[in-house]
Amino acid sequence: MTSQRTVYVSGEFVAESEAGFSIFDSALMYGDVIFETTRTFNGQPFRLRAHIERLYVGLRTLEIDCGLTADEMEAATLETIERNRPCFADGTDFQIVHNVSRGPMGLYETVFEGGVKPTVTINCWPLTWHLAALAEAYVEGVHAVIPAQRSVPARLIDPKIKNRSRIYYQISNLQAQKVDPEAWALLTDEDGFLTEGTGSNFFVVKDGGLLTPEPRNILRGVTRQAVLELAESLGLACRERNLEPYDVMTADEAFFTSTPFTIMPATRFNGHDVGAGEPGPVTRRLMKAWDMMVEVDMVAQARAYARQAAARG
Amino acid sequence: MTSQRTVYVSGEFVAESEAGFSIFDSALMYGDVIFETTRTFNGQPFRLRAHIERLYVGLRTLEIDCGLTADEMEAATLETIERNRPCFADGTDFQIVHNVSRGPMGLYETVFEGGVKPTVTINCWPLTWHLAALAEAYVEGVHAVIPAQRSVPARLIDPKIKNRSRIYYQISNLQAQKVDPEAWALLTDEDGFLTEGTGSNFFVVKDGGLLTPEPRNILRGVTRQAVLELAESLGLACRERNLEPYDVMTADEAFFTSTPFTIMPATRFNGHDVGAGEPGPVTRRLMKAWDMMVEVDMVAQARAYARQAAARG
Amino acid sequence: MTSQRTVYVSGEFVAESEAGFSIFDSALMYGDVIFETTRTFNGQPFRLRAHIERLYVGLRTLEIDCGLTADEMEAATLETIERNRPCFADGTDFQIVHNVSRGPMGLYETVFEGGVKPTVTINCWPLTWHLAALAEAYVEGVHAVIPAQRSVPARLIDPKIKNRSRIYYQISNLQAQKVDPEAWALLTDEDGFLTEGTGSNFFVVKDGGLLTPEPRNILRGVTRQAVLELAESLGLACRERNLEPYDVMTADEAFFTSTPFTIMPATRFNGHDVGAGEPGPVTRRLMKAWDMMVEVDMVAQARAYARQAAARG
Amino acid sequence: MTSQRTVYVSGEFVAESEAGFSIFDSALMYGDVIFETTRTFNGQPFRLRAHIERLYVGLRTLEIDCGLTADEMEAATLETIERNRPCFADGTDFQIVHNVSRGPMGLYETVFEGGVKPTVTINCWPLTWHLAALAEAYVEGVHAVIPAQRSVPARLIDPKIKNRSRIYYQISNLQAQKVDPEAWALLTDEDGFLTEGTGSNFFVVKDGGLLTPEPRNILRGVTRQAVLELAESLGLACRERNLEPYDVMTADEAFFTSTPFTIMPATRFNGHDVGAGEPGPVTRRLMKAWDMMVEVDMVAQARAYARQAAARG
Amino acid sequence: MTSQRTVYVSGEFVAESEAGFSIFDSALMYGDVIFETTRTFNGQPFRLRAHIERLYVGLRTLEIDCGLTADEMEAATLETIERNRPCFADGTDFQIVHNVSRGPMGLYETVFEGGVKPTVTINCWPLTWHLAALAEAYVEGVHAVIPAQRSVPARLIDPKIKNRSRIYYQISNLQAQKVDPEAWALLTDEDGFLTEGTGSNFFVVKDGGLLTPEPRNILRGVTRQAVLELAESLGLACRERNLEPYDVMTADEAFFTSTPFTIMPATRFNGHDVGAGEPGPVTRRLMKAWDMMVEVDMVAQARAYARQAAARG
Amino acid sequence: MTSQRTVYVSGEFVAESEAGFSIFDSALMYGDVIFETTRTFNGQPFRLRAHIERLYVGLRTLEIDCGLTADEMEAATLETIERNRPCFADGTDFQIVHNVSRGPMGLYETVFEGGVKPTVTINCWPLTWHLAALAEAYVEGVHAVIPAQRSVPARLIDPKIKNRSRIYYQISNLQAQKVDPEAWALLTDEDGFLTEGTGSNFFVVKDGGLLTPEPRNILRGVTRQAVLELAESLGLACRERNLEPYDVMTADEAFFTSTPFTIMPATRFNGHDVGAGEPGPVTRRLMKAWDMMVEVDMVAQARAYARQAAARG
Repeated sequence: MTSQRTVYVSGEFVAESEAGFSIFDSALMYGDVIFETTRTFNGQPFRLRAHIERLYVGLRTLEIDCGLTADEMEAATLETIERNRPCFADGTDFQIVHNVSRGPMGLYETVFEGGVKPTVTINCWPLTWHLAALAEAYVEGVHAVIPAQRSVPARLIDPKIKNRSRIYYQISNLQAQKVDPEAWALLTDEDGFLTEGTGSNFFVVKDGGLLTPEPRNILRGVTRQAVLELAESLGLACRERNLEPYDVMTADEAFFTSTPFTIMPATRFNGHDVGAGEPGPVTRRLMKAWDMMVEVDMVAQARAYARQAAARG
Repeated sequence: MTSQRTVYVSGEFVAESEAGFSIFDSALMYGDVIFETTRTFNGQPFRLRAHIERLYVGLRTLEIDCGLTADEMEAATLETIERNRPCFADGTDFQIVHNVSRGPMGLYETVFEGGVKPTVTINCWPLTWHLAALAEAYVEGVHAVIPAQRSVPARLIDPKIKNRSRIYYQISNLQAQKVDPEAWALLTDEDGFLTEGTGSNFFVVKDGGLLTPEPRNILRGVTRQAVLELAESLGLACRERNLEPYDVMTADEAFFTSTPFTIMPATRFNGHDVGAGEPGPVTRRLMKAWDMMVEVDMVAQARAYARQAAARG
Repeated sequence: MTSQRTVYVSGEFVAESEAGFSIFDSALMYGDVIFETTRTFNGQPFRLRAHIERLYVGLRTLEIDCGLTADEMEAATLETIERNRPCFADGTDFQIVHNVSRGPMGLYETVFEGGVKPTVTINCWPLTWHLAALAEAYVEGVHAVIPAQRSVPARLIDPKIKNRSRIYYQISNLQAQKVDPEAWALLTDEDGFLTEGTGSNFFVVKDGGLLTPEPRNILRGVTRQAVLELAESLGLACRERNLEPYDVMTADEAFFTSTPFTIMPATRFNGHDVGAGEPGPVTRRLMKAWDMMVEVDMVAQARAYARQAAARG
Repeated sequence: MTSQRTVYVSGEFVAESEAGFSIFDSALMYGDVIFETTRTFNGQPFRLRAHIERLYVGLRTLEIDCGLTADEMEAATLETIERNRPCFADGTDFQIVHNVSRGPMGLYETVFEGGVKPTVTINCWPLTWHLAALAEAYVEGVHAVIPAQRSVPARLIDPKIKNRSRIYYQISNLQAQKVDPEAWALLTDEDGFLTEGTGSNFFVVKDGGLLTPEPRNILRGVTRQAVLELAESLGLACRERNLEPYDVMTADEAFFTSTPFTIMPATRFNGHDVGAGEPGPVTRRLMKAWDMMVEVDMVAQARAYARQAAARG
Repeated sequence: MTSQRTVYVSGEFVAESEAGFSIFDSALMYGDVIFETTRTFNGQPFRLRAHIERLYVGLRTLEIDCGLTADEMEAATLETIERNRPCFADGTDFQIVHNVSRGPMGLYETVFEGGVKPTVTINCWPLTWHLAALAEAYVEGVHAVIPAQRSVPARLIDPKIKNRSRIYYQISNLQAQKVDPEAWALLTDEDGFLTEGTGSNFFVVKDGGLLTPEPRNILRGVTRQAVLELAESLGLACRERNLEPYDVMTADEAFFTSTPFTIMPATRFNGHDVGAGEPGPVTRRLMKAWDMMVEVDMVAQARAYARQAAARG
Repeated sequence: MTSQRTVYVSGEFVAESEAGFSIFDSALMYGDVIFETTRTFNGQPFRLRAHIERLYVGLRTLEIDCGLTADEMEAATLETIERNRPCFADGTDFQIVHNVSRGPMGLYETVFEGGVKPTVTINCWPLTWHLAALAEAYVEGVHAVIPAQRSVPARLIDPKIKNRSRIYYQISNLQAQKVDPEAWALLTDEDGFLTEGTGSNFFVVKDGGLLTPEPRNILRGVTRQAVLELAESLGLACRERNLEPYDVMTADEAFFTSTPFTIMPATRFNGHDVGAGEPGPVTRRLMKAWDMMVEVDMVAQARAYARQAAARG
């Protein structure tokens, strides 16, 4: 299956293993690249347009003209999906990832025939391995640990602009895993407020309602937004607020959200149980509602992927 | 000349236009890459070992085991230089650039035959275009402008670790050039202290001595160190100190340093003349001493490159 | 018309060109002066009492006893207006400005017959030139640019106390105009949150509702308050929130407010269009409602003033 | 004597009680004015040129073109002194104060015949009352108290630019005097470091050497510089360092410096004795050396002024 | 009465004057102790369970296993109350105070027979003296003064964890009392926001509603929560918000809350009247509602205690 | 041996296991206590007077009048030592610890016969167990780990005042030991600068010289000072400087200092070797010089204590 996938690279389709950014590309040189990640449910892309629009906010902010309108970007995305669809004929859901940079620096234009131009990549990647690894986590919950590394605040590098100058995510992961090899890093900013995971948003459940950090030093996740809407439709009170470690220590439940895995219970925090130390009723209700919304049994899917991954292992 | 150059990529040599990082590489995904840039003078690499040792401090800090010892890295560098030496047979000096990442994320290992491993690139790039653009700047000086963007402080992402999560350099350049199209961004930190240019260090001359920012929120540049040593050998007082815009407003002279261009006078600051508004006697004395040290007449070289660039243009 | 205006200065009326503060006055020496600015609509002062009450909050905070009660201040204001009313016989609306300081420092009392006492000035100034310059801006919108200068936070000098130690407004204007000669500076605080213009408040429109910065590092403008009330009466959702540049980049509309010009659309932000790049429907609806409230067609008035100014030019 | 003094105001000489800034002047509107204060010793101005040069650094920074070169400013200053010299025929020393603003805002140009132009004032003021009040303080020392108000940091409003947006000096004085009616406010910045008095610099003496705050969030006083030079000539070690309240608690001696009073011992700090609670040997030695340098017995002069002031009282 | 009281100390009951913590206890060595204070009304403990649960949040956060479950702690508390009840046979209400530490450091275990173990104390203390001192304050109000000392922020030492590393409370009290001997310190954090008193929470009343600081750099007081619930039951709008000194300057009323005294009007702030300078109608209404809720006339009780205290004097 | 030791408590001598602070003491209630720790070498107290003088700086700052002059405190200390000397007849060296508080709060005076008064304790404690645990650490070095907890800055609670409101030391230890059970916490402040261990100072060796943090957010340790003097006497360059984790990553050697253990090599930092990963030549040279200065072979002593401890174990 792997060998067939093909990646859109600035208007052409190339083999997945060959798709990349030149050493002269501003993307590599400065982490100067905007990206997006969405996924399919039953093969249908989830809120594709919302992701593309957020992509263009980032591009405008960085003054990158990628050469495509948002409509053209959507068309290119759909074409990439269709080209790769045969690879997912068995019904495996997949990620769709965009990377856009202003391209190689002008200084190096002689390297490239036809000169330098922006780089746009779009690729599809099966969720098999990603979700396989999380199958049991959905029912047991994951461990959140606050690392010594702090979030870079929006006033310095805005995480709402989904960019790749984020080495501190890797440092956070390394630190959290020294405390607990299974930990997920949960970051705080220099004010001591919770921000986000390294590629996910975070919620706590308190007195039956949802609390999530103010949308400041975080990516305003599409799935975060979808969960807020879902919760509202279930009649749950939702509030954006400055949250602190104390709020997790006194929470009833907690969970991470991200487009690939959607909702992931967090049952341990800095070595302490969150609430009863297992996925709580509100989290489970939201997970169930999500399943119904996307018409996928997320846990069953992840377990199926785990079996596939083990079989291939 | 361009087509012949070849880049070391994780043990193999590939064409310059093909050398890059996979879209699955941590380098791209997180700006999680350590790099170095040195150059030759008369074809001899400048303080190559010092650059390689700084590279390894970064790798240790990020817990990247690149698979090569520092000695092996030096050998690979020298081999890359020798392979490319014919391209520089006309005596053109060149940059030598290292990029090292932990490689593609483990999740994507099936993409890559033989699995994932760290990525190491080493390439040589003629200084022709870089210095051509600066030829007249050596004698007229450049304009420094402080952008609204502030330096990310070392406690969040340490600039002493020469990494590529530095989108804020690009933002700084964009901002400075809106004020003055020829401006070089000169950054400050959130305390209001001068830090560095976007790829260079900064000095002011006051009462015959050199002042340069404390080595905190800056890269501790190899050329910065070389200039301090050179100045000391000339009997100039040198001091690392917290410097502010006021110190540039009241300076006699100022200059940037960086390995590619070495010493570049800054004659304007935020729209005001620095000192008399032209390269000052101390700066010129240092430039001359540098020329003698490396046995290259830097201005003459840059002007020769400018002629070549124009001829090819 | 100009020569007739007269200014209340500590109980006496003096010619406009002579009204000022002694070089020995604490107002000048320390920027130690509280002021207010309101205006008339059809010759009627707008929320005069609210302005006077805010003036007294500032005076109490700075422990200035100006020698007048709020009622006496209001009476003196009305007297000043009546004395100047003949100057505005043509129906020109005008500003009413108060300045109050603790007066010359005690050290200098021998300079002043009768010793030192607080200084109170009240003057009326036709809005002709101010609004003339803005006539077309009402229909095209103004450009907002964030300068490198940050707002001084309330914990150091409280902008809610309307004082004149605000040299950073002038610096902000100088910086913004270097980027775009027509720009209005829009400040942020050191947390990266939007604060205010240099003499105005700022709103964004998002999803049909109004958002405006939390009332912390800003003057809590009387017109800001009036706009919130007006919006509420129109059924628009209004919220005070921490706002960031990203919120303007993703806003549908934006505008400044201030008592002299009331509501001014902002159609560009840091070089990007805000929404569609023209005054939006919510802004226009508010402007219209304002016109009805004060019974003045603001655009028509400004255009009339522009013609007058041109005629006098 | 008072009635004869005359003030230079933008090229003309006017009576002292009439000299001021228009209510339309940027000086008043924004605290947008640069000033200087020097004094005479035996009728000779002290380091006049150094003060004037600092004035021009401020003007350049604020982009005020006052219409005079530094030489012309010096000439105007000397003329002002000579015009006023008869007032000081009895040998009384006096202050010389400059205020320079960009003048009335352009909006108000119709108020002023001939339009708007920068405002420059130069005035001479006898030191009689100022020093009279300090006569006994020279021998007993003053009380330093740290107020709740913090210094505005240089990155927001630079105190090295001697400007008049400094309402926080007045607030500091009010706060300090509530704790101790005789207190001099001694400010700290938000890092907790000592900065300066409200119009003076601060030194501590420790182990026979002088320590004074780093030249960051302070005015770099001309007398501060003179004291450092004097101390060096006496063989005393001098160091600029971050100083904290703890350093005053453990100091042997402390003193303030400012051009009008030069060196003033501080013998109490936040209610505690500094050292032995009286002017210490190093402070007294510096005061004596100063007297010799300027050929004035400062204490005797202050006492003489105190007698004069009492006589006139 | 005094001699009879007995204190629970780690499972035993000892005389009040003997109850304490060893010099080797972590409680003393590091301020490493969690505590709680509640009181009785008519002899009934107020929200005892809520206090005990908050105690255990603190213990979990500090990883102190005190050897008792929350139920056992409650039982021990009730036993302590019953043992001491005879001392309060006259109906005097009393405080119940818990202190829990991890006990003496392991290094010192040989000092203690049976080795080291956590220290738990529970004691009952008559409210006579505490409330006697406040009897007239209930009707006249207290004076709030902001000291120079700032609150330690939650990210450094979390005040929501009710711990005893709070020397800054004592420093705050000393500073406030220098300004006004009757002052109650009202702290701000380094952002300039109001936090709390030194052992109490703070509210302002504005336009008929209650405002109180966001629950960040404060103890989330049990009585604070009870007042919010009471206010809601009275139909008063309540909001947690960042509050600044300006908000007190412009408030209609203000009050402190704490379990021992419940609601205490604050009628002066930094030397200015709050509102009319006397307990306001909303505060008085809340006080009355409180009295009804707990079935104690608080003012009458305090006055009775004042008479008793005077009698014993 | 244990049972014989006796502790000075406010003028009386009590059994070690009974010495403590009342639950009503400000020491316990607010961490409001100043302390000192020194030790003997060959039975002689080390710089006792320096410790006592630092104690009194703290007491003055907190406005605690302990009722004893420094001379009386020294006399009481010597008396305590002499009373306990028989317990150390075998030549065991011991700590001498002072704790001083303002005593029980006035509110509780009826608890205490004779009323409330300051609490002063002085005790002697054998170094057997403390040093036994460190015997091998002297030759292998300890592991330094930076916890997520940051140092409380001096502007909030001054660590130069040796007080016991330092729960964050315990939190730091807990965090460091989760990463590495043998780790010593090495703190940083919120600027990212190294401060101190939890009861020790820190040095790095670079290019043959010593670097140690600026004396700001640290206790200015008596042994730190002694090491600086010793290093100077050996001709080593010593400099106080802002140090960052990068400086440890690039250091040749590192060590902690504290009065009980004096000099302790740190050979690992955040999981990386410091220099060669073993005590380096400069550190060993300093340790040897220390041994000679105090005439104790520290390693031999610690090993002897380890044998004694094991024998008693």
